[in-house]
Amino acid sequence: MPFRDRYTGLINRYRDHLPVNDDTPIISLGEGNTPLIRLKNIPRLLGKDVDIYVKYEGLNPTGSFKDRGMTMAVTKAVEEGSNAIICASTGNTSAAAAAYAARAGITAFVIIPEGKIAMGKLAQAMMYGAVIMQIRGNFDQGMQLVKDVAETSPVTVVNSVNPYRLQGQKTAAFEIIEELGRAPDYHCLPVGNAGNISAHWMGYSEYHKSGVVSAAPTMVGYQANGAAPFLRGAPVRDPETVATAIRIGNPQSWDKAWTVRKESGGWFDELADDEILAAQKMLAEKEGVFCEPASAASIGGAMRDIRAGKIAEGSTVVCTLTGNGLKDPDTAIDQCREDLQKGSRMVTIEAELDAVRDAIVNNM
Amino acid sequence: MPFRDRYTGLINRYRDHLPVNDDTPIISLGEGNTPLIRLKNIPRLLGKDVDIYVKYEGLNPTGSFKDRGMTMAVTKAVEEGSNAIICASTGNTSAAAAAYAARAGITAFVIIPEGKIAMGKLAQAMMYGAVIMQIRGNFDQGMQLVKDVAETSPVTVVNSVNPYRLQGQKTAAFEIIEELGRAPDYHCLPVGNAGNISAHWMGYSEYHKSGVVSAAPTMVGYQANGAAPFLRGAPVRDPETVATAIRIGNPQSWDKAWTVRKESGGWFDELADDEILAAQKMLAEKEGVFCEPASAASIGGAMRDIRAGKIAEGSTVVCTLTGNGLKDPDTAIDQCREDLQKGSRMVTIEAELDAVRDAIVNNM
Repeated sequence: MPFRDRYTGLINRYRDHLPVNDDTPIISLGEGNTPLIRLKNIPRLLGKDVDIYVKYEGLNPTGSFKDRGMTMAVTKAVEEGSNAIICASTGNTSAAAAAYAARAGITAFVIIPEGKIAMGKLAQAMMYGAVIMQIRGNFDQGMQLVKDVAETSPVTVVNSVNPYRLQGQKTAAFEIIEELGRAPDYHCLPVGNAGNISAHWMGYSEYHKSGVVSAAPTMVGYQANGAAPFLRGAPVRDPETVATAIRIGNPQSWDKAWTVRKESGGWFDELADDEILAAQKMLAEKEGVFCEPASAASIGGAMRDIRAGKIAEGSTVVCTLTGNGLKDPDTAIDQCREDLQKGSRMVTIEAELDAVRDAIVNNM
Repeated sequence: MPFRDRYTGLINRYRDHLPVNDDTPIISLGEGNTPLIRLKNIPRLLGKDVDIYVKYEGLNPTGSFKDRGMTMAVTKAVEEGSNAIICASTGNTSAAAAAYAARAGITAFVIIPEGKIAMGKLAQAMMYGAVIMQIRGNFDQGMQLVKDVAETSPVTVVNSVNPYRLQGQKTAAFEIIEELGRAPDYHCLPVGNAGNISAHWMGYSEYHKSGVVSAAPTMVGYQANGAAPFLRGAPVRDPETVATAIRIGNPQSWDKAWTVRKESGGWFDELADDEILAAQKMLAEKEGVFCEPASAASIGGAMRDIRAGKIAEGSTVVCTLTGNGLKDPDTAIDQCREDLQKGSRMVTIEAELDAVRDAIVNNM
């Protein structure tokens, strides 16, 4: 019989490695267990003998890696008796928070600065039933209010200050090791708040220390050059990049990430926005994998470092794709419109067999 | 050691059940293996003792169940020497076709009728590098041209006439049986072209006949009432529904679907658009699962039939969620805007601790 246990999320799979016990009421949407896809065409185009995998975290339930942390954060909030969670976010964090709150039957509050409401960003959290709290102030004030209110109200903060989120996120490293049968030589990630690179290092280190693997990877973090505090060595005021998921000037996990860099022998580097978008397009066109712009920083940076020999031939490289391309349709549409304006990617023809036949021959 | 084989898609997992051999060059993006999520809150709200699962096909690589069929269709196209595939579609089929063509290193042509180009629908296929062929004609002419051109040009049709697609899609039934340890009592699906309900029945029947399970489910198909040929008993001209993925008036798998209904003892029913959208919202708000409108026809129909007792208490029910909610952001945004106009789901407050505290208490 081919029967097997139903997959019920990363806490159940990794409960021995996570701060839960048999009485913990687990809040899961089947997150984790995402595909580790081996690239076929890009290594050949690079002309380098490297084995590149992408960990496609965009196939988590709400479309980003945030679900790994949120299943833990909301599970612990419910265990501790919370009836509400709160975060300041307009992006992937708010969507994940709202979804797991819905599943738990508690309320998610999302604080945003007053101003023009970007419905494209907020609609996902709203569909999950979050209550949007628009404040007459800026994002930093919102973040401070989130921290302050949790001290006096029965509400749990699920922004990245929540310590359980990195616990959940570290499981991505477990999955990679289990499927590769080893740790990769290099693990490349986009870096914004720097929580994810820190969480991956936690996971790799745990499996290394417990003897599952004999080595841990070199950790490499890529930032957008308009939001690159790790390259500047200091927080960046008014960070700006098309890769909104890593548009962060003052990373929460600043110290942790420097430790990761040191302990793993890794490095940070930065990419321009057009390099990020080109990598996003290349991954979609050459491998059929569509990620959000921030995610493409990992593969864009890795390609550059492979070409330059900084990542050596013979290496096994894993790049984390943090979010689904469908998360940011506007940027994709803008890219496609440019193609159309250049006259590529579209032909207009008569509805006749000969015309179709000619168009095929001319465009193959 | 927790090592295990890397998951490399449904053809590798089910190769004994599919028309491939050891030499077949498999084109995969890690499709299939999607979560089977047990609903927690909706059964309680219904006040019925039923076990409802949703099979969340929106977590396939391009965001819909079409990937299951497309991995097979493109694999066989490449095996047969094709250098291009073609389809008439502006939706999920074109996205899946383009992604798998990209992965295979061949060209995907997408035929659309001339007119205002809906970039939101086409952008995904374009990101994957498809060539859009806009014809001076309508959709039916496009479909006919696709069939005709394949007879004389070295291009493979991957619309639903392609026989390999249902082969790939049947694997969803295998996964459900393997994780439940049995077949469900009822399996509910949205019905447009009716290929998916037919494919699921193929899968269930194969596992039933080979003795893996001792029963197959009752198959239930739900249509949108503006596009319900199975309810009318005849094709529908000018089908119309907000659930664009099932806006089909003349289903490709007409005969197959009637056979499924008869053999399984099932039925067809129809939902109004507002019932579909209400089900989509309810699933997101009460369970944290966001699907595209067409997908919600399955859970919306199932809830109605459970309430009415047509689906009996004590049953195990699986509803297929065919696509990801992120596929149709515009419909979600419209729904959220309505909430905002009604004054719900959002509060605007001063950036002060007391105001946040009050807003939490008032909105929990």
